[in-house]
Amino acid sequence: MKIDPDCLQQMERIVGRPHFSARREDLVCYGYDATAVLYIPDAVVFPASSQQVSQIMALANAFRIPVIPRGGGSGMTGGALAVRGGVVIVFSRMNRILEVDQENLVARVQPGVITAAFQDQVKRMGLFYPPDPSSAGFSTMGGNLAECAGGPKAVKYGVTRDYVLGLEAVLPTGEIIKTGVRTAKGVVGYDLTRLIVGSEGTLALITEATVKLLPLPESVMTLTASFAGMDIAARAVSAIVRSHTVPRTIEFMDNASIRLAEGYLHVGLPVEAGALLIMEVDGKRDEIGGLTRALEDQARRLGAVKVTVAQTEAEAQRLWQARKAISPALFKLAPHKINEDIVVPRNRVPDLVAKIDDLRRQTGLTMVAFGHAGDGNIHFNIMLDKSDPKALETAKRAVEALFDYTLALGGTISGEHGVGITKAPYLRKEVGGEVIALMQRIKKAFDPLGLLNPGKIFPGSVE
Amino acid sequence: MKIDPDCLQQMERIVGRPHFSARREDLVCYGYDATAVLYIPDAVVFPASSQQVSQIMALANAFRIPVIPRGGGSGMTGGALAVRGGVVIVFSRMNRILEVDQENLVARVQPGVITAAFQDQVKRMGLFYPPDPSSAGFSTMGGNLAECAGGPKAVKYGVTRDYVLGLEAVLPTGEIIKTGVRTAKGVVGYDLTRLIVGSEGTLALITEATVKLLPLPESVMTLTASFAGMDIAARAVSAIVRSHTVPRTIEFMDNASIRLAEGYLHVGLPVEAGALLIMEVDGKRDEIGGLTRALEDQARRLGAVKVTVAQTEAEAQRLWQARKAISPALFKLAPHKINEDIVVPRNRVPDLVAKIDDLRRQTGLTMVAFGHAGDGNIHFNIMLDKSDPKALETAKRAVEALFDYTLALGGTISGEHGVGITKAPYLRKEVGGEVIALMQRIKKAFDPLGLLNPGKIFPGSVE
Repeated sequence: MKIDPDCLQQMERIVGRPHFSARREDLVCYGYDATAVLYIPDAVVFPASSQQVSQIMALANAFRIPVIPRGGGSGMTGGALAVRGGVVIVFSRMNRILEVDQENLVARVQPGVITAAFQDQVKRMGLFYPPDPSSAGFSTMGGNLAECAGGPKAVKYGVTRDYVLGLEAVLPTGEIIKTGVRTAKGVVGYDLTRLIVGSEGTLALITEATVKLLPLPESVMTLTASFAGMDIAARAVSAIVRSHTVPRTIEFMDNASIRLAEGYLHVGLPVEAGALLIMEVDGKRDEIGGLTRALEDQARRLGAVKVTVAQTEAEAQRLWQARKAISPALFKLAPHKINEDIVVPRNRVPDLVAKIDDLRRQTGLTMVAFGHAGDGNIHFNIMLDKSDPKALETAKRAVEALFDYTLALGGTISGEHGVGITKAPYLRKEVGGEVIALMQRIKKAFDPLGLLNPGKIFPGSVE
Repeated sequence: MKIDPDCLQQMERIVGRPHFSARREDLVCYGYDATAVLYIPDAVVFPASSQQVSQIMALANAFRIPVIPRGGGSGMTGGALAVRGGVVIVFSRMNRILEVDQENLVARVQPGVITAAFQDQVKRMGLFYPPDPSSAGFSTMGGNLAECAGGPKAVKYGVTRDYVLGLEAVLPTGEIIKTGVRTAKGVVGYDLTRLIVGSEGTLALITEATVKLLPLPESVMTLTASFAGMDIAARAVSAIVRSHTVPRTIEFMDNASIRLAEGYLHVGLPVEAGALLIMEVDGKRDEIGGLTRALEDQARRLGAVKVTVAQTEAEAQRLWQARKAISPALFKLAPHKINEDIVVPRNRVPDLVAKIDDLRRQTGLTMVAFGHAGDGNIHFNIMLDKSDPKALETAKRAVEALFDYTLALGGTISGEHGVGITKAPYLRKEVGGEVIALMQRIKKAFDPLGLLNPGKIFPGSVE
């Protein structure tokens, strides 16, 4: 689109010259995210305050231009992309931890704070912010809130939504509002806080968040358990979650993932295993030994071929490195990745993995599955060369078949990554036309002109 | 209002004759709730299915009549009252537990299920549904969801919102929708589930809920700790919540509450104490002894004058009876009660209690405070004779002063009871005009004709 030069000039004036650009060489940097498609915006702006965000939004209304909020740019579904042009708001300057209230276990942060930096800061105070997407080292609190990020610790501790108490946000029409509370409870009016969380930056621009903290667990232990097949592993997961020692993390890797990670990092993973579980258990110093032994015994009773407890922090770190290496290592298999993030009831994970095996056989495509078994949350990857149109078409059909099967099992097509542009065509499959219409009316209640992050979530919105 | 006889006839046909009434002697039973004001509806209807609820709503649209959903009728802010006439929908026939999925720790319930009945049923399977409003023995899951009920266990386990995964609901325009998931995670589209939860029956009629369950804790112990003053007790609460043994319940009673409960039940409460904490700690059988001793020691170190551990289940029950006796015992003091439910940051509870002492002195009114100290959630009661207009006026001014002070402390005017009609005049104080306007636009997105539970939440809506 072509933006009125007067508008751009006024925008520059709001934030100051160094914090605005409409130069193509700058804009390119803000045209991508983890989906690896490029949409170059018309301008990029770096506000320093809620007031500036409000002024930018008011200006965008006057000139009818799209505004796209952007955190770390690590989203997997295109949430930060300027698919209809417009101005990208980057929150990198609004990156202060405003308050950590150690007595009430509450913190206030700006949206540009890197999630891991926040976790480290509160950890030094003996406190704990559990949501931990793999991207935590470079994604932001604002982005995590917009997508309702999860992560491995969700098994015991829940997702981002469960830690937000209140927000300050700028409405698409420019008003600054406050939602929610900074107390443990609060039921005054509609729950705007959790409506904005997970709305993928389409309802409001989060300019401050009040989040809940926990006391930091004293001790953590990491275990691996290898199984002959995914079905036995999944039954073990159900039994473990049902017991009284719920691990904080139960990750799984299929055989393809194990081989891949082992080939990449050589940490001694069991390359013959049908499935590997990596579990973390946390608790008080004087009970962690007993908890670990109980979990170890339980895994063996439930059919694990081999159970290993990491004896040192370094050993545990290596296991997690191997788990995190899967994503980058995938590119050894093929130049492009189609990455999906599906969830099924925990006890249906074996069905899903069997379906993936079927699809692999039927299509001849390279497929790798791993993820958060404790939540039934599977990250499913097809590796291919997208310049091969036949492979791409086959892959797309496989994804659609997998989505259909996921929904038939009572699951959802997005556990952590949102809908964005990549899953928008499938929204109707999961929620149906009535719900889409209702969500669009809610969108309109916030954003009558459709200026905030347009083209996201709803089907048919990206050409 | 006067409803078209044709409409009433059609409504009777939807549910069948025995499940409908427009007779005044029946209607009176559905004209009150725990606020003790009477609004007699024009009709009452008892649907048996989501389809019938949908048909009733469609009919209400055709004839433009208000529809008011009603659970157990135990709400504290008037949510179930037909303040503008219309038809009350009672969910007592939709009272089935549809499914308890023991492998995935998920259950599906109809809205008319009594909360305690559901808790008992899953308990027999070794499972746990934590939300536990004092009304659990007679309030319903639907009502708890509509109000986002809390309860003493929220300290460790959170509130109703934290246990809802998905809903089936009937929109005010009659469509049946499904929201959310039945999996541990899910981020597809806007979070309609948590928007409807806590919306006090103004956005949709919940016809089914999918909720999350936990493994039942193996053991529970109950302790009491008495303190010289509320300030010491509150500091102890902050320190305990910050530690690694978070009790599941930390209730407090001020001196007036202690005397009241003791005078009513004679269980041996310390009538000289400035404040009493009742705490529950839960955990595994083999660790509960250690946890209890640790908490006991901690309470002593933090200034408790006396700490007592209930030695038997019967003894623990008596303590909880005493805590629950406060509400009914209040009526020994005066014929009428003004009951408020406010929350402040945990460490500001002493300020709030001091403010209540001030107000008591200034006004000469009888005031009693107790509640969920672990959440900073205070149930504040003024006992008076409402036929004395001067006392009533003084009481209203005291409530308003307390609300102002609560907000100044960073708190909220409703922790668990919602807004309904009784707190609607104060909504603006807490959330401001912009947010009210936004909430009203959301209401309109669901309910364009304003037929579902009108006159609630928003100020100026009840004359």
